[in-house]
Amino acid sequence: MRQAGRYLPEYRALKAKSSFLEMVKTPELAAEVTLQPLRRFALDAAIIFSDILVIPEALGQGYKFRDEGGIAMDFRLENRAQLDQLDPAGLTTRLNYVAQALTRVKAELKGEKALLGFGGAPWTLATYMVEGGSSEDFSRIKQLFYTDRSFFNALMEKLTAALIDYFQMQINAGADAIQLFDSWGGIIAGQDYEAASLRWMRDIIAALPRDFPVILYAKGASSQLTDMAFSGAKVLGVDWTVDLGVVRKLVPANIALQGNLDPVLMNTTPEIVRREVTRLLETMRETRGHIFNLGHGIMPEAKIECMEALVETVTAWK
Amino acid sequence: MRQAGRYLPEYRALKAKSSFLEMVKTPELAAEVTLQPLRRFALDAAIIFSDILVIPEALGQGYKFRDEGGIAMDFRLENRAQLDQLDPAGLTTRLNYVAQALTRVKAELKGEKALLGFGGAPWTLATYMVEGGSSEDFSRIKQLFYTDRSFFNALMEKLTAALIDYFQMQINAGADAIQLFDSWGGIIAGQDYEAASLRWMRDIIAALPRDFPVILYAKGASSQLTDMAFSGAKVLGVDWTVDLGVVRKLVPANIALQGNLDPVLMNTTPEIVRREVTRLLETMRETRGHIFNLGHGIMPEAKIECMEALVETVTAWK
Repeated sequence: MRQAGRYLPEYRALKAKSSFLEMVKTPELAAEVTLQPLRRFALDAAIIFSDILVIPEALGQGYKFRDEGGIAMDFRLENRAQLDQLDPAGLTTRLNYVAQALTRVKAELKGEKALLGFGGAPWTLATYMVEGGSSEDFSRIKQLFYTDRSFFNALMEKLTAALIDYFQMQINAGADAIQLFDSWGGIIAGQDYEAASLRWMRDIIAALPRDFPVILYAKGASSQLTDMAFSGAKVLGVDWTVDLGVVRKLVPANIALQGNLDPVLMNTTPEIVRREVTRLLETMRETRGHIFNLGHGIMPEAKIECMEALVETVTAWK
Repeated sequence: MRQAGRYLPEYRALKAKSSFLEMVKTPELAAEVTLQPLRRFALDAAIIFSDILVIPEALGQGYKFRDEGGIAMDFRLENRAQLDQLDPAGLTTRLNYVAQALTRVKAELKGEKALLGFGGAPWTLATYMVEGGSSEDFSRIKQLFYTDRSFFNALMEKLTAALIDYFQMQINAGADAIQLFDSWGGIIAGQDYEAASLRWMRDIIAALPRDFPVILYAKGASSQLTDMAFSGAKVLGVDWTVDLGVVRKLVPANIALQGNLDPVLMNTTPEIVRREVTRLLETMRETRGHIFNLGHGIMPEAKIECMEALVETVTAWK
């Protein structure tokens, strides 16, 4: 999950001079922000600093952050003509700044830490594109899904193809694994998750090099974990609302699990963090293939001493 | 789930003259709002128009709606002295307006339709009381839960006792069933749902008359449904993010299921509603004990023609 961000003073110092999107698009800055948490904490992996919405932007649908919070796309994707204008040709050239950032971080890591690339699931990207930004109720994307499956599928095919190229570029640039984030996987009706989201993620994973590790994370979609286990992903990221020990018993043993400490605990005290980290590690003691992580991205209110307590507890664990 | 509200012009007409809380606290108005949807649609049951936060208010912690949206409690519950001042004596006297509204609706229904009372789960009420209103991250209630279990439990005991009295009052006033809403059940770590919420709801259900029907609904807590099946509730409400046919196979056959159409579909078109209602009914065809409902409360943007399509499709179903 997200490691960098506003909880770090060194991030805020850079942010004071550049916008979020400038940092994402400037390889030196993206690499620097990626490495900031690793300079402070004994982490085992770095996740590239980027944004899931670079894909629609590179296809021709730009975006900005609203002053009042949330995302505003430059327009709302409403018809086939707009979809046809989204141009995948030269996509990885336009996204080369991500490859450059990965290459820089890879060199700094000297093979001692893993480097994770990432991207948003086609369904999650489509919610922003069709809603025209952040949404309260997701009624437009759902209306599209339920009324014009052909248009919906054409959009998903375009996004799926773009993501395959994008992830291949990340792999070529040195990513050791890819995290696929279905941040809005939890808003569609349970019985429609396969058609709305999972099948497209499966297509992406199948198109990547055989056995390349993909970490699949769908927020709020815990009832889909057993289906997600057959997506081709080697690892399932799990949010904190599910007992990870129970998930371990439901998901085949050859699938690793990543998670799932409640990120809000990082806003409390080191004592709470130590106790709850220990409890989670204890739950997973007799199991194999657990990647300790938060159950979602770290929050701006997180305390550095809580992050220290987490990393110390995990690394000292026997 | 919530049936009344801003999607109805007759509700908006009343709301133009009285605040939400005035409507809740005036039995004539609460009864009228409760009955409005039943005058338009061939529903099988009425759910009393009220609010979960009448409990903290009757205990001495009032609240109001913020202009910018969300709830502001009059103060934040931070210490034992404040907890001790919350006074359960005379609670049902102060909440007698709810009993009066139920009595009025009961008379109007003439035994032809079921009447549902409701209340909020202790955990959900505690989130508002400890956070001081609506919350983004729920860090205060979680910090309390993880650092001072004794204070947390004392608060939950007070709320549990208050809710038992409140529900008994509703039953005496004619409620045929009680819906227990754990609206924020989905924000606590999965392994802590038992201690944070479920055990208190079980205590409430156990204290009500034997075999009195309670409908238990916890938003976003689908991984808890099998545990909830042993809460004593006769019915589990299910949100739309889970495949109800799958839940039916996981939950004992003597527990009925209520749900779970995505409420956003009511904002789309009658055609979509008819198709998706039929699909859900078809999924549950070979099963027993399905109460058709939305998977959450109806939204202000819902269209009356969609609600008509829903009710027509369900009532015509063979």
